[in-house]
Amino acid sequence: MIYDTIIIGRGPAGVSAAIYLKRFNLNPLIIAKDDGVLIETEAIDNFYGFGHISGKELVHRGIEHAKNLDISMIEAEVIEIMPLGETFLIKTNEGEYESKSVFLAMGKKKAQLKIATRNKFDGKGVSYCAICDGFFYKNKHIGLVGAGPFMENEYNVLKNFTKELTIFTDGAKLEHQFDGVKVVEDKIIELVGDERLRSVKTQNGEYEVDGLFIALGSQSGMSLSYHLGLEMDEKGFLKVDNFMTNIPGIFAGGDIIGGLLQVSKAVADGASAALAIKKFLDSKK
Amino acid sequence: MIYDTIIIGRGPAGVSAAIYLKRFNLNPLIIAKDDGVLIETEAIDNFYGFGHISGKELVHRGIEHAKNLDISMIEAEVIEIMPLGETFLIKTNEGEYESKSVFLAMGKKKAQLKIATRNKFDGKGVSYCAICDGFFYKNKHIGLVGAGPFMENEYNVLKNFTKELTIFTDGAKLEHQFDGVKVVEDKIIELVGDERLRSVKTQNGEYEVDGLFIALGSQSGMSLSYHLGLEMDEKGFLKVDNFMTNIPGIFAGGDIIGGLLQVSKAVADGASAALAIKKFLDSKK
Repeated sequence: MIYDTIIIGRGPAGVSAAIYLKRFNLNPLIIAKDDGVLIETEAIDNFYGFGHISGKELVHRGIEHAKNLDISMIEAEVIEIMPLGETFLIKTNEGEYESKSVFLAMGKKKAQLKIATRNKFDGKGVSYCAICDGFFYKNKHIGLVGAGPFMENEYNVLKNFTKELTIFTDGAKLEHQFDGVKVVEDKIIELVGDERLRSVKTQNGEYEVDGLFIALGSQSGMSLSYHLGLEMDEKGFLKVDNFMTNIPGIFAGGDIIGGLLQVSKAVADGASAALAIKKFLDSKK
Repeated sequence: MIYDTIIIGRGPAGVSAAIYLKRFNLNPLIIAKDDGVLIETEAIDNFYGFGHISGKELVHRGIEHAKNLDISMIEAEVIEIMPLGETFLIKTNEGEYESKSVFLAMGKKKAQLKIATRNKFDGKGVSYCAICDGFFYKNKHIGLVGAGPFMENEYNVLKNFTKELTIFTDGAKLEHQFDGVKVVEDKIIELVGDERLRSVKTQNGEYEVDGLFIALGSQSGMSLSYHLGLEMDEKGFLKVDNFMTNIPGIFAGGDIIGGLLQVSKAVADGASAALAIKKFLDSKK
């Protein structure tokens, strides 16, 4: 079946959009890998009408709200979004889904290493997007940090550029085997270098690399966006015009487009984006 | 005392702004005559996280939310907003209040007669603003519809233009006596005319008028806005730039500025406007 809209993310922006789309008698599908970063917020005191609530409780009430309206929801990690002309193919680790439009609402989190030097070499040897920067490390020694499907996706890009690849799982266990690839499974404790990154220090060793790609956790919004060629501003937020990105049919709202990084704004974005999506779908009839 | 911000309206936009301002450690005061039009909405199913809730219940939860944060709130009808240079004087039927900034959040309702012909002569003999249009009826017979403080305020403007004034209370009892003014206390049933309004038909008679001013209920946002000289668009919504009207220090949000007329958007407006107000107040220090 082809959904009217596939919504990526089940936080306030995504669920709010789904609620409106459903009430427009459209057929949205929410795909999310987890409950997002809002659940890490201990207390929200400034979202109208709720008084005091935890991020976790609010997100769960939102999901409940969507379920009560019979909105379809799938727990999966989106690996790739492929524009197919009139529709979009959403590839996940749990299968593929097709839709006439896409709403990106996965927030602004970029998975990072939890060490002091994590940002020290951003753009100076450390990258968050294989397809964007892999070329610069052609035939060089590339380190790749991660252990899940997102890392594997980045691996499939990077292996075209070099044979010297080291996967750093940062303490995690690899889900699959990789032929002919060096794997370091202990925790990363420091990124070392002067002007540029020179090596990765782990609990049990130090490994020289020319470049290091961070693919921790899941495909971040930024990474998916790079792959799609979506325009961003200088802060890494998606550029939208009435919630539509530069690719017709792909919309975005909530923290991923910047502005006030607040629940209230994400909820309103969802509502307005749903209206914009409806207009877009109507114009295609 | 001088408040940082006086917020007019205690619906979603007003309360959301108050919550943010309070958390910015500012001192807002909410003034509202009642709970606004949202309470007339029987069911709201599309405000994130609430599932199914009545307008009344949601507004009351919002007010509760504000009270729990010790936000000052007064039930009164705002009659006039006077810019005093560095501050604003808010005149109400319960006294005067002063603030460094104002947030208009009283929604978009314009009190109207509940008869079929109510809009037939808008701009053709029927007006909603004495100070805007009173001059056109100089020395002519003016009808004035209303019975409360807002009507009295309009009366005080219109009496400067003509001695021939008839007050139509539309079934209500006048709160005060008016010397030398004809008062018709029965219900209006029809506005009569061809190109322009010619007479007002009530249950017990018909009265010729040259112009009729509607001042039912309370001072509407539109009327207050006209008095202040606030710029509006062609639909009667206030024009704002990052929530500030054309008068520096006077902000507006929610339905009164148009856009999506939805709770979610009003709540987000309140949050963003609070931020804009904070910046304005900081710039004055």
